[in-house]
Amino acid sequence: MLNDWVKAKKPDDEELSKRLETARAELAKRQMAIRDAKLPVLVVLEGWGAAGKGSVLGRVIKNLDPRFFKTFPMSKATEEEKRRPFLYRYFAKIPEAGKFVFFDGSWMDEVTGLYLKEKIDKKEYAKKLESIKRFERQLHDNGYLVAKFFFHIGKDEQKKRIEALEENDNTKWRVSKWDKWQNKHYKECQKTFDEYLDATNQFVAPWYFIDSENRKWAELQMTELLVQNIDIALQNAGSVVPVLQNTFPLVKMPLLSEIPLDKTVSDEEYKAELDSLQKRLSELHNELYHKKIPVIIAYEGWDAAGKGGNIKRLAAALDPRGYEVHPIASPEPHEKSRHFLWRFWTRLPKDGHIAIFDRTWYGRVMVERLEGFCSENDWQRAYTEINEFEKELDDWGAVIVKFWVQIDKDTQLARFTDRQNTPEKQWKITDEDWRNREKWDLYETAVNEMLQKTSTQFAPWHVLESNDKHYARLKALRTVIEAIEKRLKES
Amino acid sequence: MLNDWVKAKKPDDEELSKRLETARAELAKRQMAIRDAKLPVLVVLEGWGAAGKGSVLGRVIKNLDPRFFKTFPMSKATEEEKRRPFLYRYFAKIPEAGKFVFFDGSWMDEVTGLYLKEKIDKKEYAKKLESIKRFERQLHDNGYLVAKFFFHIGKDEQKKRIEALEENDNTKWRVSKWDKWQNKHYKECQKTFDEYLDATNQFVAPWYFIDSENRKWAELQMTELLVQNIDIALQNAGSVVPVLQNTFPLVKMPLLSEIPLDKTVSDEEYKAELDSLQKRLSELHNELYHKKIPVIIAYEGWDAAGKGGNIKRLAAALDPRGYEVHPIASPEPHEKSRHFLWRFWTRLPKDGHIAIFDRTWYGRVMVERLEGFCSENDWQRAYTEINEFEKELDDWGAVIVKFWVQIDKDTQLARFTDRQNTPEKQWKITDEDWRNREKWDLYETAVNEMLQKTSTQFAPWHVLESNDKHYARLKALRTVIEAIEKRLKES
Repeated sequence: MLNDWVKAKKPDDEELSKRLETARAELAKRQMAIRDAKLPVLVVLEGWGAAGKGSVLGRVIKNLDPRFFKTFPMSKATEEEKRRPFLYRYFAKIPEAGKFVFFDGSWMDEVTGLYLKEKIDKKEYAKKLESIKRFERQLHDNGYLVAKFFFHIGKDEQKKRIEALEENDNTKWRVSKWDKWQNKHYKECQKTFDEYLDATNQFVAPWYFIDSENRKWAELQMTELLVQNIDIALQNAGSVVPVLQNTFPLVKMPLLSEIPLDKTVSDEEYKAELDSLQKRLSELHNELYHKKIPVIIAYEGWDAAGKGGNIKRLAAALDPRGYEVHPIASPEPHEKSRHFLWRFWTRLPKDGHIAIFDRTWYGRVMVERLEGFCSENDWQRAYTEINEFEKELDDWGAVIVKFWVQIDKDTQLARFTDRQNTPEKQWKITDEDWRNREKWDLYETAVNEMLQKTSTQFAPWHVLESNDKHYARLKALRTVIEAIEKRLKES
Repeated sequence: MLNDWVKAKKPDDEELSKRLETARAELAKRQMAIRDAKLPVLVVLEGWGAAGKGSVLGRVIKNLDPRFFKTFPMSKATEEEKRRPFLYRYFAKIPEAGKFVFFDGSWMDEVTGLYLKEKIDKKEYAKKLESIKRFERQLHDNGYLVAKFFFHIGKDEQKKRIEALEENDNTKWRVSKWDKWQNKHYKECQKTFDEYLDATNQFVAPWYFIDSENRKWAELQMTELLVQNIDIALQNAGSVVPVLQNTFPLVKMPLLSEIPLDKTVSDEEYKAELDSLQKRLSELHNELYHKKIPVIIAYEGWDAAGKGGNIKRLAAALDPRGYEVHPIASPEPHEKSRHFLWRFWTRLPKDGHIAIFDRTWYGRVMVERLEGFCSENDWQRAYTEINEFEKELDDWGAVIVKFWVQIDKDTQLARFTDRQNTPEKQWKITDEDWRNREKWDLYETAVNEMLQKTSTQFAPWHVLESNDKHYARLKALRTVIEAIEKRLKES
């Protein structure tokens, strides 16, 4: 692409100055426009070392009010960040609605660097490109503008700039080893950059090349293109995005109504098996910790199905330093103003740790769907978005266990009534529980659809028959143990 | 991708038969559903030679009524087809709304074959992949379902099948040279197929792998996936597609109001220059013919701006065997039920020929926009779709000249009045012309936007100042001559 790229024609100095003045003013105006339209804008600056990304960014943000933007120089991942999926640190920093975020360097720099220096192989690299494409598309589909700029300079120009920076003690620090490596291996880098740009040049997030031989000219190109990008994105704001075809292999799931709920376990069996399963899980937790394998356990189920007690028995077997339970309530304003998966991405554990989610990202296709908290297009799209999210967890190497805790309607009524009539349990029952109960059939339809569409081979659902809570607890422990053992065998 | 591909699990024979029966019935039901929703469905069968595409297709269509589908075995392009852009023969066969079209082999087979046999180089191949991605995305964006299946078999299985076919005199003919070439170069082919599948595995038109070791199992996979694809597409029907960012370098155009219209030419000059320009064009036409360079000339302009007379003077210089004028009126029903560019794709000339369009595909962003003949999303999207169409013409090697014939409002009034008052000119003026005149300002806005957004470096607009028709005619001839001369120099 860099070879075929048709450069825009640089105007003479007078016109350049005039156009730059206009472009800067236009960009400044867009701040209010994106705020009013609640448009989140993610600007990605990539390119050759010493191409002047940083200094152009410095000029561009001078037109913006600090309340409306954040910049992140994305250098190397910290040790903490390395223990999460590689997109974690980027996802965590996406803008909220109505704001700009500028990344000086990004996932491109990271993955092409790893590949060029042979720290990841071709297969791993290809997998990361797929992740990146899904990430950028998800942002777009969720109403983000993703504007990507590649700052280009030739080999000689790069060399000249690196030398100039190094000659001056005040600027020496700005030259990185990576910059020099690039210049030494310019051709090799160009090939990899080209292939990367080509592979990730998606219709929803295209690349723009910035001719960076002259800084003022580079600023003009970037500012004009950014304004154009914003205008198109504003035009698209609120538009409905086509739902994607499922492309992940699915595991066939039964309908809720087909699941027999007569499974029970005697008190004696329960006590004995609970004890031995907890011991086994405790050992495995230790092993996971040493092998740095992360575990994600997701609980969904009917009100009063026994999620809380189930989680308790699981957690009891774990070392408190190595796990966390995340009770998920309705999103807060700062969460609502971002991609709906943001609050789950930012709660991912470090590798070797276990995260248990008491209610999850599946709220999107259940409560948010049924209560109208998101649009139909949003929840229809979410099946794929969730499968893609879990694919990231799988690629990261996580053990993923998803539970649907199932009871029948009569059992729920009995438990609700018991809660109502038992003073120390009354806090557990609210008017909302009764209102939800009235919508049982609607929920059942939604849950059935969710189980069918999100039970992928890499993250299948497990149903816990919980009319007998003891039975469900043992099954949960057994399922988690099996999943971990399977993963340990592969590692 | 073929290596990573997670195969679906083949059920036992009994379940397979049961599921197949269900799937066939479901597919049959979808015929009415797609007819009612006016969904056009393009099914592409690709894969290894002897993988059984043809026979599976034969089984699949048994569930469909012949009124609702067409199949095309896409073998080699004919000599006639080779003289058009490579996508021409595919674009010409896209389904109309509510119908199925099945391609047995397609653009994938064509371009990977050319590349593998080194008939096109890497750069040309990369260009074709871009064309294909744009083509598939445009179909999707215009409401088409594009379902792509790759039938996979291993090298040994392929060999076995080829040999079995060859042993029998009745089936011998079904083995092509290309099939045998593939088996001999299996690894090389697999690498290229893999890269192709990867590059064209777009979110809007993903690839599905069909495990083809068993024919009945292959049929089941394809039928089930096709039904799923149709259901998602029906769900998306009528959805608004985000408008894409422009990524082609543009040429800055003036506003219509900024164009001086006082240019004139004396009668003597006119006659002399017309004569010499026509002679020159006539020579060039000859040269074009021999070098097989196609020319596309597009005329748009105000009513009574003088398009007709202008085209006449141009055509007068051309050999009638080598050009065609296409007057474009409103689309007929069979045209309206397909992608809006279909009626222009099918009118493309052979190479070495000239096509002159009297009104064009730009109707989409003028009359269709202003009269509400398409949705806002349709015409907003069309700027990019048109630029992409012209990019295909440019890639094909065509000379593209686009004229906007400009007059002022007073001149139009004078010409309308003259037509009204001159018996032999009265046929040229209709009530519609007067109605359009009332919308002058709206049209001016639309034309300005069109000129800004579709004046690409490879297909810029040329304004013909036509208050003096003679001036405009000479300028048209000069512009066409220059464009052809430039192209001849490059060839």
